[in-house]
Amino acid sequence: MPSPEFFQVLPPADALALFDQQWQPQPPADTITTAAAPDRILAADIRSPEQVPAFRKSTVDGYAVRGSDTFGASQSLPAFLRLRGELRMGEAPRDDIDAGDALLIHTGGMLPASADAVVMLEHTQTVNEGEIEILRAAAPGENVIQAGEDVAAGGLILPRWHRLRPQDIGGLLAVGIHEVNVVSKPRVGILSCGDELTPPEAELTTGKVRDINAYTLSALAEKYGARPLRLGIAADAIEDYRQRAEAGFDACDILLLSAGSSVSARDYTRDVINGLGEPGVLQHGLATKPGKPTIIAVCKNKPVIGLPGNPVSALLVARQLLPHLIARYQGMRPEPPATTKARLAQRVASVTGREDWLPVKLARAADGERLAEPVFGKSNLIFTLIVADGLLRVPLNTGGYDAGIIVDIERF
Amino acid sequence: MPSPEFFQVLPPADALALFDQQWQPQPPADTITTAAAPDRILAADIRSPEQVPAFRKSTVDGYAVRGSDTFGASQSLPAFLRLRGELRMGEAPRDDIDAGDALLIHTGGMLPASADAVVMLEHTQTVNEGEIEILRAAAPGENVIQAGEDVAAGGLILPRWHRLRPQDIGGLLAVGIHEVNVVSKPRVGILSCGDELTPPEAELTTGKVRDINAYTLSALAEKYGARPLRLGIAADAIEDYRQRAEAGFDACDILLLSAGSSVSARDYTRDVINGLGEPGVLQHGLATKPGKPTIIAVCKNKPVIGLPGNPVSALLVARQLLPHLIARYQGMRPEPPATTKARLAQRVASVTGREDWLPVKLARAADGERLAEPVFGKSNLIFTLIVADGLLRVPLNTGGYDAGIIVDIERF
Repeated sequence: MPSPEFFQVLPPADALALFDQQWQPQPPADTITTAAAPDRILAADIRSPEQVPAFRKSTVDGYAVRGSDTFGASQSLPAFLRLRGELRMGEAPRDDIDAGDALLIHTGGMLPASADAVVMLEHTQTVNEGEIEILRAAAPGENVIQAGEDVAAGGLILPRWHRLRPQDIGGLLAVGIHEVNVVSKPRVGILSCGDELTPPEAELTTGKVRDINAYTLSALAEKYGARPLRLGIAADAIEDYRQRAEAGFDACDILLLSAGSSVSARDYTRDVINGLGEPGVLQHGLATKPGKPTIIAVCKNKPVIGLPGNPVSALLVARQLLPHLIARYQGMRPEPPATTKARLAQRVASVTGREDWLPVKLARAADGERLAEPVFGKSNLIFTLIVADGLLRVPLNTGGYDAGIIVDIERF
Repeated sequence: MPSPEFFQVLPPADALALFDQQWQPQPPADTITTAAAPDRILAADIRSPEQVPAFRKSTVDGYAVRGSDTFGASQSLPAFLRLRGELRMGEAPRDDIDAGDALLIHTGGMLPASADAVVMLEHTQTVNEGEIEILRAAAPGENVIQAGEDVAAGGLILPRWHRLRPQDIGGLLAVGIHEVNVVSKPRVGILSCGDELTPPEAELTTGKVRDINAYTLSALAEKYGARPLRLGIAADAIEDYRQRAEAGFDACDILLLSAGSSVSARDYTRDVINGLGEPGVLQHGLATKPGKPTIIAVCKNKPVIGLPGNPVSALLVARQLLPHLIARYQGMRPEPPATTKARLAQRVASVTGREDWLPVKLARAADGERLAEPVFGKSNLIFTLIVADGLLRVPLNTGGYDAGIIVDIERF
């Protein structure tokens, strides 16, 4: 028999709040190479072991000089300086320059100790092999970046919880940081239960269906930045179900159970979850369609979700809950899904007090306007989601939408 | 000396059009397991080898009946049927039903041959062990999904060029497709050139800088769905540069060269690219800042980009060109980048005829409004991109933006 909580359905947002109250994630850190760290989240502040730039550099191609030697120089009254040769890229200056000297230098080149400015090539003219004309004065510091101007030694480069972008990888390597501590990706365990289920790779016998939830939920978990862990198929018998759930629970950080559609499998799920640890089942029943029979639980400080067995329901419920859990595990908030505005082609009925998720196809009207056409399918099989381009959310307290209004379609 | 094309700078959109004209990608297909295929792009139409559902199924928990046996049944005048037992989940019916029979069946269960409807549990009542009352008529086909109703055998499931989503993986496995042909991800080769460059893991000696472009560009390529291939650092000498570029070119589908800031390395790049094959360099110079000295080329039907050596310039130019090339290789258009609206905190100057990309920080004003604060840094080092939350684009024919206007910031 369904338990009493089943009838007190909870809006999905409240279910997420329940997780937030009852679950305090303590993610471990992984030490990985910086090159392998794009998109990972920093487990600690990162400070620079060295100053950047490491030395005073020219920001242009030109001549390193003492600025004071160029004061008053102009097109009509150039300053004449001795050419002290060229500093090749990647080399440190061998000698310092003296008053009245100029050293040919490239962008990024290291200034000799006594040089304090660089005159751009276009403001100079070669007189003869050993002498140049300076046609414009360069103030001290001009076209020069000072050592440590970008980052001081010990300065904070990137804070904890920052997700590493391509430029961050470059910044870390630029100061010689080859390894970083990043927040471990949560392992999302996925266990299916039901005698009717066959692994997709096995021969299909009459009456059986292939267990695709393990794979759709794996793909979803991976999409949102977790590591999926497929735990196989439990028989529709409590002992096998319990055993597999316990083994899987120990190996993962978030556990998804998708119980087959038999009444017994549905009933077992509740008991199996409560056996995994305190506090156990927090809520049975979500105010959402599909997804009403969903179970929300936390056991030994790990979230556990009992999903419906139907592949569409399982995927759409997981999509509402899993991104939040994966992000929260890593100290983040989930990114809101990308949406597209479209005109609703057809009336959509709903029920107040329930959040509906409806697959829609996007099409173009004759006038070029984008139309959202609901995909109705009595089977509720995965193919209704395959022909769809996205999902229409009908919020909790909306009785439906009339045809012709503009709606936001979440791409999925 | 710079070549004449250098001064005829081209807007980035025109550079992309040049690639489109001169480059006809012919991506090979990879055969991979369906489970490993999320986010990959189909190389061919996929048709179903079998019908879905494979057999007539109940869509509810209830009793499989001959609909005609229930005609006229109501609360006040129930129909009485013989109970022929229960069909367990995952089993095929052993016997057919006769007129006047009912078989207990679960959601997803297979109908016996002569049953054509299912009466929901809640519309029935148990009389005694062998008999039930039907309280509502069920028309033939009610609560039944016909074999092949979702997908006919041989029917198109997913078209060529479709990017596989979690539900698509489920749909493929549901019809027993365990392997798919997907478009190969392009290999993006990245070769740096310059005597001043040191691999990031090596000890840094005076005057040298770490080669970070190989890693920022790798991360960028991966972000947009390509496989990066780091080709090392070429010396600032044309023979070494040419040799490494040729070897790398053969191993990749798109080649990025990032030449050091020395004049010679910049000049070599052009010759090296022209040596890779026809038609060679198509354009030298983009109407964009940073990125003016960029080289656009196609050699033997592969795109080649000569990027500036400066890490910020290299990354921002690659970001403008690479997503288009990676998407086009796979028969797609790139996703537009996510943007955020913000009020510009400070005036931004630009030049008509040039597209500028300016790093900005996003902040909150006292009244909660989102502000975009330009990050100016004379060094143009990677750290200006690290402190930034996104980029402001100042379009080609805009002379700049006044403080206080609302702008779109591309998250990067």
